[in-house]
Amino acid sequence: MARTFQPLGDRIVIKPNEEEEVSKGGLLLPDTARERPQEGEVIAAGPGRVSDTGQLIPMSLGVGDKVLFPQFGATRINEDDDELLFFRESDILAKIS
Amino acid sequence: MARTFQPLGDRIVIKPNEEEEVSKGGLLLPDTARERPQEGEVIAAGPGRVSDTGQLIPMSLGVGDKVLFPQFGATRINEDDDELLFFRESDILAKIS
Amino acid sequence: MARTFQPLGDRIVIKPNEEEEVSKGGLLLPDTARERPQEGEVIAAGPGRVSDTGQLIPMSLGVGDKVLFPQFGATRINEDDDELLFFRESDILAKIS
Amino acid sequence: MARTFQPLGDRIVIKPNEEEEVSKGGLLLPDTARERPQEGEVIAAGPGRVSDTGQLIPMSLGVGDKVLFPQFGATRINEDDDELLFFRESDILAKIS
Amino acid sequence: MARTFQPLGDRIVIKPNEEEEVSKGGLLLPDTARERPQEGEVIAAGPGRVSDTGQLIPMSLGVGDKVLFPQFGATRINEDDDELLFFRESDILAKIS
Amino acid sequence: MARTFQPLGDRIVIKPNEEEEVSKGGLLLPDTARERPQEGEVIAAGPGRVSDTGQLIPMSLGVGDKVLFPQFGATRINEDDDELLFFRESDILAKIS
Amino acid sequence: MARTFQPLGDRIVIKPNEEEEVSKGGLLLPDTARERPQEGEVIAAGPGRVSDTGQLIPMSLGVGDKVLFPQFGATRINEDDDELLFFRESDILAKIS
Repeated sequence: MARTFQPLGDRIVIKPNEEEEVSKGGLLLPDTARERPQEGEVIAAGPGRVSDTGQLIPMSLGVGDKVLFPQFGATRINEDDDELLFFRESDILAKIS
Repeated sequence: MARTFQPLGDRIVIKPNEEEEVSKGGLLLPDTARERPQEGEVIAAGPGRVSDTGQLIPMSLGVGDKVLFPQFGATRINEDDDELLFFRESDILAKIS
Repeated sequence: MARTFQPLGDRIVIKPNEEEEVSKGGLLLPDTARERPQEGEVIAAGPGRVSDTGQLIPMSLGVGDKVLFPQFGATRINEDDDELLFFRESDILAKIS
Repeated sequence: MARTFQPLGDRIVIKPNEEEEVSKGGLLLPDTARERPQEGEVIAAGPGRVSDTGQLIPMSLGVGDKVLFPQFGATRINEDDDELLFFRESDILAKIS
Repeated sequence: MARTFQPLGDRIVIKPNEEEEVSKGGLLLPDTARERPQEGEVIAAGPGRVSDTGQLIPMSLGVGDKVLFPQFGATRINEDDDELLFFRESDILAKIS
Repeated sequence: MARTFQPLGDRIVIKPNEEEEVSKGGLLLPDTARERPQEGEVIAAGPGRVSDTGQLIPMSLGVGDKVLFPQFGATRINEDDDELLFFRESDILAKIS
Repeated sequence: MARTFQPLGDRIVIKPNEEEEVSKGGLLLPDTARERPQEGEVIAAGPGRVSDTGQLIPMSLGVGDKVLFPQFGATRINEDDDELLFFRESDILAKIS
């Protein structure tokens, strides 16, 4: 049975979209020419961060949201052949709809 | 159908003005001589940042505003042949009118 | 008799899962090919950090929780042939369940 | 028609005084011998910065003020043959009267 | 008569445990092979730090506590042939019991 | 007519004491042997800084105060053959009396 | 008549104990072998720092206190053949009694 991650604080887990291995012209792309995907889906979200005054700042993002994320700043782990990305919500650029 | 970005926090998305490829004297400019445009239009804006006390600090900028932005600090993405720039509102220099 | 650690503030002590010394294909792995485990169990937890306003911010994690932790940032000590990791709770990526 | 800039937050726009191209002794100065002017006039001012508690901190400077500014820290743009300097008010050294 | 130190703020003074000069196998260890001890006893403690709002944040540690401290970050002084370590309480890893 | 500077925020303007060009033994000192004076008189002072909560933190120093200032950290300008130093009040070491 | 320094904010002035120029064995020590003294007496103290909320945080140290100070971080000035050290109170390690 697959296990689940409950992110702490304002962290989210993103499953990035799969990279296209074929260019639009139909050529098979070498690794360096493939752009790292910067889009994915939120598969888990923390409860939010607790401010210095003890207040829970609720999250804007939830499971299922499609997001645009920056190229750097993620903690990357491998889980069941998937690469998962851990970000703080404040690093996410935008929700895509 | 085109998709839309809903920026998080105090982020905005700017579509920069197109670069002029011809100098005022009519010469076609090589790439290095063309100045990066520093003006554009806000095409999406977040709800504002949430302060440490849990308060939403509302935005000064909205969709349609013409803005002057700094040369550095943007996250740049390509979307449908357009380059889009993600900034935090606090990095924007001025509204142009 | 074994002694116990009572972490200060928002620190936790993690006993990392044991590294597998044999690869899935059955080969004995040299040291450099073995990934550092990034999972473990919380064996002690502090009371939480005290904010600037004197408020105790309670912990999300407790003894027995399985956690995913980042590769860097721990203070590592050896205790009775075990390696123990000291982290601040805010550095922990997620609870695993 | 000339366009106007409305600086965001606590930013101001300064039109620096013109550099004197002739030294006091009447010699034409080479570029490196001319000091960068550090004085100018405020031609636009933002509404002030919004603090973490959501409060607007009003500006001390307004349009028409003569100011002394530091040599570094400005964002410089060219507009209609003028160089304009964007500063945060907190970087300005003094009002001149 | 021995003099005493009253640490300021949230500082504590630790007398580290003595290094074992003989390895478990009975060999006399050269200096580089001896691990710096990371345990000791609190021999003096400040009243606590005063927060930005003027509040005294009381200490968790007191005289006589056995503690685990990090390898770096102490101010070390020599006093009557003893090495004493000054730490801020927030740097201490755990109380040992 | 001489112009005046009104420093912004918690800035002060200091006119440093004149350097003695003759050593106590009567020798004319070369430039490198002359110590930079670190004392001077406050000739202008700002109203104080405005805190994040919008509160004006009043100044401790006023015009006419003799002060001891650090060797580094000033913004230096030349005005009518005088060198003037701009400091934030928080950088000043002491009032001399 | 000797002049006095009134330190600003949470600064104190320390007159360090004199260095012993003779080692315990009676040898005259070369300069490099003499340890910089890290103890001295408070000869002047500021009123305390003013917090961001406008509150005066009172001092723990006063004139006449013997203190232990760190080797680095002081601003050093020479006054009437004495070396005086300016520290912020928060940098002082302990009061000696």
